[in-house]
Amino acid sequence: MTGASRATPGPVVLIGGATKPRGDALGAFVSLAHGRDGACVVVITAASGDPAGSARDWHRDLTLAGCSDVDAPVIASRADSMDASIAARVASADAIFLGGGDQVKLVSIVGGTPVGAAIHAAHVRGLVVGGTSAGAAALAKTTLAGNEVDGAGELVEQYIGPGLGLVAHPTIIDTHFSERRRLYRLFVALAEFPTLLGLGIDEDTAMVIDGDEGRVVGAGGVTFVDARDVRYSNAGSGRGEPLTLSAVRVGVIGSGYGFDFAARDLIIPSD
Amino acid sequence: MTGASRATPGPVVLIGGATKPRGDALGAFVSLAHGRDGACVVVITAASGDPAGSARDWHRDLTLAGCSDVDAPVIASRADSMDASIAARVASADAIFLGGGDQVKLVSIVGGTPVGAAIHAAHVRGLVVGGTSAGAAALAKTTLAGNEVDGAGELVEQYIGPGLGLVAHPTIIDTHFSERRRLYRLFVALAEFPTLLGLGIDEDTAMVIDGDEGRVVGAGGVTFVDARDVRYSNAGSGRGEPLTLSAVRVGVIGSGYGFDFAARDLIIPSD
Repeated sequence: MTGASRATPGPVVLIGGATKPRGDALGAFVSLAHGRDGACVVVITAASGDPAGSARDWHRDLTLAGCSDVDAPVIASRADSMDASIAARVASADAIFLGGGDQVKLVSIVGGTPVGAAIHAAHVRGLVVGGTSAGAAALAKTTLAGNEVDGAGELVEQYIGPGLGLVAHPTIIDTHFSERRRLYRLFVALAEFPTLLGLGIDEDTAMVIDGDEGRVVGAGGVTFVDARDVRYSNAGSGRGEPLTLSAVRVGVIGSGYGFDFAARDLIIPSD
Repeated sequence: MTGASRATPGPVVLIGGATKPRGDALGAFVSLAHGRDGACVVVITAASGDPAGSARDWHRDLTLAGCSDVDAPVIASRADSMDASIAARVASADAIFLGGGDQVKLVSIVGGTPVGAAIHAAHVRGLVVGGTSAGAAALAKTTLAGNEVDGAGELVEQYIGPGLGLVAHPTIIDTHFSERRRLYRLFVALAEFPTLLGLGIDEDTAMVIDGDEGRVVGAGGVTFVDARDVRYSNAGSGRGEPLTLSAVRVGVIGSGYGFDFAARDLIIPSD
């Protein structure tokens, strides 16, 4: 817990899924975790449909990524998340990473438990917390899921609910973004909640947030959607019409570029 | 040619492909064509890989849609497009419709020919000209194609070139828009040409343009992208980076809603 003396909350690393163990996106998390000697990374795989198998996979991948000390407790239920010995392992972490799966499952298992509290406390102490796919989506204050066709071709109902809330700015995080072409889904969610900032993160790509500043690292980019200036939308009209929306601001932040969360705008390079 | 006395150019009906013969999108074209007694609709299928087969299909579909007089000359080559007797058939039309296929092929076959001139003249005389899919894309001053994966999984190079130019406002028209999730492709094109307005039309949906005003009719919606306010993009940097773009305005116009082409904004309903 060498980060304990830091006064400000730690960085948050949001990855859009499909991480490569030696890719730059996961590397951004690992390098922030390794500013500390002998850092222990705790991986939480509660989002996964197979938490034990996912824990083994992440132990391997984070070791490949250069972590010398990886602890992957199996958290498969809310009971596990309330277990004092598991919470103590999370509380002793120098960095925490949340694996993928189902963000609603993740929040429902760890939200409000000792494990959830240990994740929050680590962030407040200045440690890095990262997540990929569902693990990234769950780190916002508000979590989006559904409103798209599942593997069986069925339309899953939209779910918008509370997230773990480590991202300070009011944000909805979407992942696998270009790959699953989810921008329209994000428009629909933001038409209902126009004060939130939408962030769509591509696969194997990280948005590293530190205070008001974000930077993008990895294979793809991050799309942002700012709906504050919408003058008209038919969301909530109750007429069941398809979306009509006057105009949102949409930008794309490529790898190597920065984002100003206060201004909700690309940081324009000075060169 | 009962529209000859009209002083202003005729309406343009842009359909996003996959028209249903009795759908509202094609119906919007037909009703504008039928303001005239015994109107003759000429269909041009030069965009198709099978112009003769497509001509037969459109003859059937437009008849089903309620047209009593459909003429579908087979225009399969630039020679056909320069044929005086074919041009005369187009020139005698009361309404003209351009079928789908490949917009680059369509423009290369009819652009600058007597058939192309007859289409322009009909529009200037106040007659309705419509098109679907490639036939809609070709009606803008600038035509976009490519920069997406084809049926064989190969990435086709982006093509941006001149269109037939019946849409007065500087516009790029994309079709099959939600269905093929083409917004990112439109962003890439507009990062290069930010003065153009991007219009993405869904399948079986029409954008009916009359002067500065558009209205959307049909099964889906129309997405608009206004890139004039982009303060930074890496398009044309020559660094071969993925897209970075500070912010564009994006809105969605549902069926029944209108669009102000001068303001580039949704017409907000007064109710």
